[in-house]
Amino acid sequence: MTTPPPLEASPRVPALSATERTRVRRHSDRAATDRQELYDVLDDGRICHLGVIIDGSPRVLPTGYGRDGDTLYLHGSTGAVSLRADHEICVTVTHMDGLVLARSLFNHSINYRSAVIYGRPRHVTDPEEKLTGLRAVVENMTPGRWDVARHPTRKELAATAILALPLDEASVKIRQAPPIDDEEDYALDVWAGVLPVRETLGEPVPDPRLRPGIRYSE
Amino acid sequence: MTTPPPLEASPRVPALSATERTRVRRHSDRAATDRQELYDVLDDGRICHLGVIIDGSPRVLPTGYGRDGDTLYLHGSTGAVSLRADHEICVTVTHMDGLVLARSLFNHSINYRSAVIYGRPRHVTDPEEKLTGLRAVVENMTPGRWDVARHPTRKELAATAILALPLDEASVKIRQAPPIDDEEDYALDVWAGVLPVRETLGEPVPDPRLRPGIRYSE
Repeated sequence: MTTPPPLEASPRVPALSATERTRVRRHSDRAATDRQELYDVLDDGRICHLGVIIDGSPRVLPTGYGRDGDTLYLHGSTGAVSLRADHEICVTVTHMDGLVLARSLFNHSINYRSAVIYGRPRHVTDPEEKLTGLRAVVENMTPGRWDVARHPTRKELAATAILALPLDEASVKIRQAPPIDDEEDYALDVWAGVLPVRETLGEPVPDPRLRPGIRYSE
Repeated sequence: MTTPPPLEASPRVPALSATERTRVRRHSDRAATDRQELYDVLDDGRICHLGVIIDGSPRVLPTGYGRDGDTLYLHGSTGAVSLRADHEICVTVTHMDGLVLARSLFNHSINYRSAVIYGRPRHVTDPEEKLTGLRAVVENMTPGRWDVARHPTRKELAATAILALPLDEASVKIRQAPPIDDEEDYALDVWAGVLPVRETLGEPVPDPRLRPGIRYSE
């Protein structure tokens, strides 16, 4: 049951090498092997879902993150239980790109891109790296704000927990296609296709306490 | 450190009763106690992030779900490892509603609604309940399709795994507010406010093999 890692490597970045748990078993045709695709899925997202084990039970929490090269930085409060423990975690980033409406319910699907990363994170204590990690998180979630907003004080930095997770063990799955129906179902009188799902930003809503004359700029 | 469950109950539905792990420790002002808010967060979402423990490690996978009363149904293939085990799971649904841009990086935040549910799911084997669960999932992800698309055959139903998770132990967190800055930062020359995040559906893209004359209708 062991499959050798895929051979097709990107010229730009090393391939994603599959481990036992990152090998895509279901719909293996959807597995991406180019590391750039991992970067793209991560850089396109704003929050991840962080999985940890607490008292023997799984816990999944939405968490801010950012990428710097092959390191994923996770951000939270030093008070957060999920960021305290020094154990293995799983980080998942999912983009839902479309609802795939087939002629049969069974073949309904989702067009999506998802990345799943496993590893044991490192607590960042070095102030320089903490700023690097924080910058990655800020720029991933709210691009452009690092150069605009007030930077953290030493006290604020101390109250911020940054975890570093190497992008060593990861899998990427992508489905971007029309519905695939059973051959005999194509004759049915049922609309089939894809409803694209898009995330958009609305008009900026100024803080009620915003001083007059300050304009929003992207 | 034990807090009694909140007293304010909704007239419509019983309150969410906090257990040790669903009690909101961080930003407890964001905790919702009305069960209707749990329903709303769940009914507004299409996919959840399912957390399981596999070989001692956490695993987080995007998963389709639907709600029927106080039961959450999760959907997958009978081949999926994550749906096979009969152990405790965590289901998280997150809506990112806005990017909260503060004057300081430290006070940047996210406007969001999230629900976290814990429990030991039950494998649905009864064909009737399986259809109930499947209908809940289909109508949650792709509303209206249950009445339009071909229903599952017995063989398809057998290949579909449906888990039932009671909504017994859940927490809901909601933040919907402008940025909260440190008092002295309000004098800064920095734009502050909220960028609303919206999920929209684009124009339907017909399947290339769609027979002529079949129109999309919502």
